Amino acid sequence: MNAEIICVGTELLLGDILNTNARFLARELASLGISLLYQSVVGDNEQRLTAQLRLALERSELIILTGGLGPTKDDLTKEVCCRVMGAELEEDAQTVRDITAFFAARGRTMSENNLKQALLPKGGIKLNNPRGTAPGCVIEKDGRMLAMLPGPPREMQPMFTDELRPLLLKKSGGVIYSKEIRTFGIGESNMAQAVSDLLDSSNPTVAPYAKDGEALLRVTAFAENEAAAKAMCGEITETIKERLGGYIYTTEYSSLEETLLHLLLERGETVALAESCTGGLIAKRITDLPGSSAVFHCGVVSYANEIKEGLLGVKKETIEKYTEVSPECAAEMAEGVRRLSGADYGLSVTGISGPGGASEGKPVGLAYIGFARKDGTDVVRLVTGRQIDSRDYNRVSAASTALHTLLRYLKDGARPAPGKEG
Amino acid sequence: MNAEIICVGTELLLGDILNTNARFLARELASLGISLLYQSVVGDNEQRLTAQLRLALERSELIILTGGLGPTKDDLTKEVCCRVMGAELEEDAQTVRDITAFFAARGRTMSENNLKQALLPKGGIKLNNPRGTAPGCVIEKDGRMLAMLPGPPREMQPMFTDELRPLLLKKSGGVIYSKEIRTFGIGESNMAQAVSDLLDSSNPTVAPYAKDGEALLRVTAFAENEAAAKAMCGEITETIKERLGGYIYTTEYSSLEETLLHLLLERGETVALAESCTGGLIAKRITDLPGSSAVFHCGVVSYANEIKEGLLGVKKETIEKYTEVSPECAAEMAEGVRRLSGADYGLSVTGISGPGGASEGKPVGLAYIGFARKDGTDVVRLVTGRQIDSRDYNRVSAASTALHTLLRYLKDGARPAPGKEG
Repeated sequence: MNAEIICVGTELLLGDILNTNARFLARELASLGISLLYQSVVGDNEQRLTAQLRLALERSELIILTGGLGPTKDDLTKEVCCRVMGAELEEDAQTVRDITAFFAARGRTMSENNLKQALLPKGGIKLNNPRGTAPGCVIEKDGRMLAMLPGPPREMQPMFTDELRPLLLKKSGGVIYSKEIRTFGIGESNMAQAVSDLLDSSNPTVAPYAKDGEALLRVTAFAENEAAAKAMCGEITETIKERLGGYIYTTEYSSLEETLLHLLLERGETVALAESCTGGLIAKRITDLPGSSAVFHCGVVSYANEIKEGLLGVKKETIEKYTEVSPECAAEMAEGVRRLSGADYGLSVTGISGPGGASEGKPVGLAYIGFARKDGTDVVRLVTGRQIDSRDYNRVSAASTALHTLLRYLKDGARPAPGKEG
Repeated sequence: MNAEIICVGTELLLGDILNTNARFLARELASLGISLLYQSVVGDNEQRLTAQLRLALERSELIILTGGLGPTKDDLTKEVCCRVMGAELEEDAQTVRDITAFFAARGRTMSENNLKQALLPKGGIKLNNPRGTAPGCVIEKDGRMLAMLPGPPREMQPMFTDELRPLLLKKSGGVIYSKEIRTFGIGESNMAQAVSDLLDSSNPTVAPYAKDGEALLRVTAFAENEAAAKAMCGEITETIKERLGGYIYTTEYSSLEETLLHLLLERGETVALAESCTGGLIAKRITDLPGSSAVFHCGVVSYANEIKEGLLGVKKETIEKYTEVSPECAAEMAEGVRRLSGADYGLSVTGISGPGGASEGKPVGLAYIGFARKDGTDVVRLVTGRQIDSRDYNRVSAASTALHTLLRYLKDGARPAPGKEG
């Protein structure tokens, strides 16, 4: 089945908000084995929305629209779709009751135009929206399926998952199963090269992706049922594991921090952080995850040398002799925060994120990661090689390298190699 | 001038990466007074790209394409554009030298297909790319202007700003000037209501936006030259200031943290952080900014009560009597980190981000912000009212409220009101 996505809204068209809906839907359609051919964005403009919809009906079997289901006169999606498809709008009594209850529960006054949201295409399928007042709907006619979803992602995503996806699954005639194999430290091109013969495989497919210094492979299989699709993915995953070995850090979780959280939870252990150039980013990434309080008790952002000395116990001489961006300082920071917190592991980062701060032999993008344990301390040196407009990249890379250093130790008992050019 | 954007790339179409290019370009075109009518995304597919381009040429005077300028056989943008426009591709000698030098400088080997990037449309305008190997280009014909930019945002954005924007400025026959007025604590609908008569104004325009609990107004004027446009914005900005008064926290900077950084820099003062439920997010937001090391020396992420007690000196009895999510604990955390670090101000956050952790009278979304100064300590209570799927929102809101608490004090000498429902 060929599909396209039309996102409706002037605020999207003019770039006031980022189009995360298109991305969400694109990935979901891929996971259903539906071929997405076009995405487009049009403003709240009747004439252009009509033209775009007519064009879409000529070339695609499934058209998903988001946005334009609101109560104002700018919200035109249902009206335009019904006119183009020759369907009538009629008031849905249940929706009227739902909207009334929605406002009552929040102690807010419902305005008359909210009832516009209760108009639904006659003969269509209603898609429920427990998180908002605008239900979605589906119209089918002449081999074309038109699905209208609300614009706000927190209403649209669950509506897709709970209401539209089951309808699409029936049409797709099979099941797609995807698995992600996440690597660290190898880089996208080397990773892809190691499995280059597998990238031509058509079912399952293997596709490489890269972001922020991490690279992953997505394995996707299409089969009659989930068990069969899973088995197909499992088989090729084994081959990939043989090729990429220690570079793979998870086939289960969706990030370094999530994998690390689970490893620490399994062992009942804790980690403490001493962050200089990452400035709280590692702590933020760990505490983004619910449940992280069981494994993470203490972080120190020691942006100034006095804090490194006074709070973490880094020796004054260490900084005088080696500067604060040195393996010696990283080691003492990690040991200091481990001691201070009583955690099983201490992780530290000190480096130069840029744009300023570089000196002879210490370029922007240099970082030292300290890793302190009961039985000793190691230091990893990272050079990202990015020196211009790279503050965010350098901070993310250093944070990821720190997370990965502990992760690998927990997973394989591996102590880090001291140098890493990333 | 009517415009549209075509983003080319299968990885965009399938949602593997988020389309930030469309947003960037949309905002830039708006700032130039160019009417953007459509955005679309097509994969690396010759037939569909050709169809999309033909359609665009029928309806738009300016077409900006991004992506598909790479060295592989999948990269088709220049080839398709030249075919459709009847232009020839020819090798550009300077580009060959640039690409060769680019690889030499990085010690990498240039492959033969990199020279495909040196092919440019005969009679077109070349757009330089100091950050990559793919130059952009512009073809003009029959009242249509086609601009091709590379896909990676870090190459595309500066190329637009340095090379394409000046060309477009000449065509637009005037200058657009925009100014953003940022508020905190009022909410988008109340803000919009306070200036509702101004929202209908056509030049300058006033438009409301909201994100993560902050609301801003963008004022945009179109005039013959920048001075005139600025003056028009300045006048309406004064009216808005009268209406929104203390809710406005900046008309100069682009975030709470940036505004705060400048206020602290001006005064030569420092802030220290004690974060519990925000888990390093405030520190991360401050240290995202270059130059933050002058005003921020020390942060403590005290996720566990032992750290609140042992490191920050929160009294055991305080936690026993009031629990760690209490105004008393917030106050002692802020005072503790101020004492520990020697900073001028101590800011703390303790609360319940969710999904777990709520108890009788302490819902998910509750946070206490402590603000310690030389002359005393205040505590702000925040209730976001969001309890489901709201961990990120609650963390961001609490972090923003903490930043704003200090910011308002520095700006107006205002001590915070103790309660805030957000």
